[in-house]
Amino acid sequence: MNIYIACELESSEKKIIKNNLKKHNLYFSNLKFKKIADNNFLKCEIVFGNIPPDWIKQSSKIRWLQLESTGFAEYSSVKKNFLNKGVIITNLKSFFAHQVAQTVMAGIFSFYRGLDSFALLKKKKKWIGDPIRAKLEILNDKNILFFGKGSINQEIAKYIKVFNCKYSFIDSNSKKSFAIQKVKKAEIVICALPGTAKTKMLFNKKMINSLSNQTILINVGRGNLINEKYLIKKLKNNDLKGAVLDVTAEEPLRKNNPLWSCPNLILTQHTGGGYKDEITDKVNFFLNNFQRYKKKIKVLNKINPMKGY
Amino acid sequence: MNIYIACELESSEKKIIKNNLKKHNLYFSNLKFKKIADNNFLKCEIVFGNIPPDWIKQSSKIRWLQLESTGFAEYSSVKKNFLNKGVIITNLKSFFAHQVAQTVMAGIFSFYRGLDSFALLKKKKKWIGDPIRAKLEILNDKNILFFGKGSINQEIAKYIKVFNCKYSFIDSNSKKSFAIQKVKKAEIVICALPGTAKTKMLFNKKMINSLSNQTILINVGRGNLINEKYLIKKLKNNDLKGAVLDVTAEEPLRKNNPLWSCPNLILTQHTGGGYKDEITDKVNFFLNNFQRYKKKIKVLNKINPMKGY
Repeated sequence: MNIYIACELESSEKKIIKNNLKKHNLYFSNLKFKKIADNNFLKCEIVFGNIPPDWIKQSSKIRWLQLESTGFAEYSSVKKNFLNKGVIITNLKSFFAHQVAQTVMAGIFSFYRGLDSFALLKKKKKWIGDPIRAKLEILNDKNILFFGKGSINQEIAKYIKVFNCKYSFIDSNSKKSFAIQKVKKAEIVICALPGTAKTKMLFNKKMINSLSNQTILINVGRGNLINEKYLIKKLKNNDLKGAVLDVTAEEPLRKNNPLWSCPNLILTQHTGGGYKDEITDKVNFFLNNFQRYKKKIKVLNKINPMKGY
Repeated sequence: MNIYIACELESSEKKIIKNNLKKHNLYFSNLKFKKIADNNFLKCEIVFGNIPPDWIKQSSKIRWLQLESTGFAEYSSVKKNFLNKGVIITNLKSFFAHQVAQTVMAGIFSFYRGLDSFALLKKKKKWIGDPIRAKLEILNDKNILFFGKGSINQEIAKYIKVFNCKYSFIDSNSKKSFAIQKVKKAEIVICALPGTAKTKMLFNKKMINSLSNQTILINVGRGNLINEKYLIKKLKNNDLKGAVLDVTAEEPLRKNNPLWSCPNLILTQHTGGGYKDEITDKVNFFLNNFQRYKKKIKVLNKINPMKGY
């Protein structure tokens, strides 16, 4: 089979693929994607990595696309092409759940135990000490609201059991009025929703206004879920306790983006899913899924292009 | 009874005490302690708060001292006076366990998920993004070594169960050679030992040299447990992954203290035990212990002055 590898890989990881797929024709992309699809790509039945969405339209050969990300939003413009061509599409959902869940925990504990402030005080060599104590909190008994019932939020729900937190889930079937009632009482709001037409600007002014000044808002879903301009206003006003954004509307953030200078905000630069052995593990996931594809066993993490997840 | 209140209290908290101890003579200190004991103090059988150790020698009345801290080290110079006078001494051990344990979790997650770096990058308005991912880790399966079997470490041990960490405890009876063997394999070392003659400089050059460059060292015990100068050298050299110091030899840290500019270090300014309702809860603990004292029921958190805990 002809296989197109569109991921950025170290030579050690390329070697793993070469050793495992000796009988196949491998085409490694040079990653400087152009608008016109790469000729090698056009020969391939299998693609590993996030190629430009427009390329899908140009290929008559592609049968399976293994994305190296957890989302699908960037391909929603070509979802019909996937359907018409009968292309199987799989992603890495659940793959980053542990990592993202622990970035969320890091953010929560950072606000509750003051680490965001201590980092800046250290920079200034400024001791405050005791007067900070009264601002610190613990996670125990907090009221947590999850947007999304996926693997990230399920993982966090496991972690918080020992802290005796109350928690509930909002999903894409929940009514907006119900969500608004729920966020009013939440002390921690964790959003891990996919980017779909339905979730876009879910956190609009009305939803953000429903958050209390004791609430931490965390977004590890998609950058377009939140009205950032309004969120900044509220954070500056201390109308929220704090926010953690792993994803932002603009990525990378330019120097003039007002998020940089927004107080009570932790920016994790879309690294929530990152970890040491990530690339090797991605490669192994693809190789495992490839065996399933070849043997016609159900591939893992298949996406419904119409739903987008 | 004559009761001396040496804690810094808001008027609301003073009111709680007054309402609960109406039949007794209350003497609130002005907190500018002098070397010669306050006359009001000298009248009192019961003391709530951390008076200067030397005052103990001057009092013929004191029967019970309720400290408002978790330690005892500052009173070790007058431990014989406690014994000779038969003074009961109680502290707030276990009281801060949840809080300190969560400051420890904040520190661990901050290093593993890069939040210490992201705070500084935000200040610089600098996006790094993807290249940081390979430096991030998760807590799962880590090897943790606890110094001390007290309430703080017990609490942390509860939190980490879900992460499938391996862990073991070193206590004051463990041999030093055993401790050194253990730290060599530990990825997280959490020190919550009291300040005693035995624990002083436990983390000397030899012990610090036994830590791997993947290890996070956390001290929430006492500042004199660690050779800070040597720790700074190792952190600057990236010979450790990072350190969290809630307690330091010098407190407050002066501007010229080299800890301020030490990389890979989180300083939490001795706030580990702090939380919103701390003072009210302290007052209620004292009032509860007062009822026990009065009714001759065993008081809570009694210290053995010779042991220091």
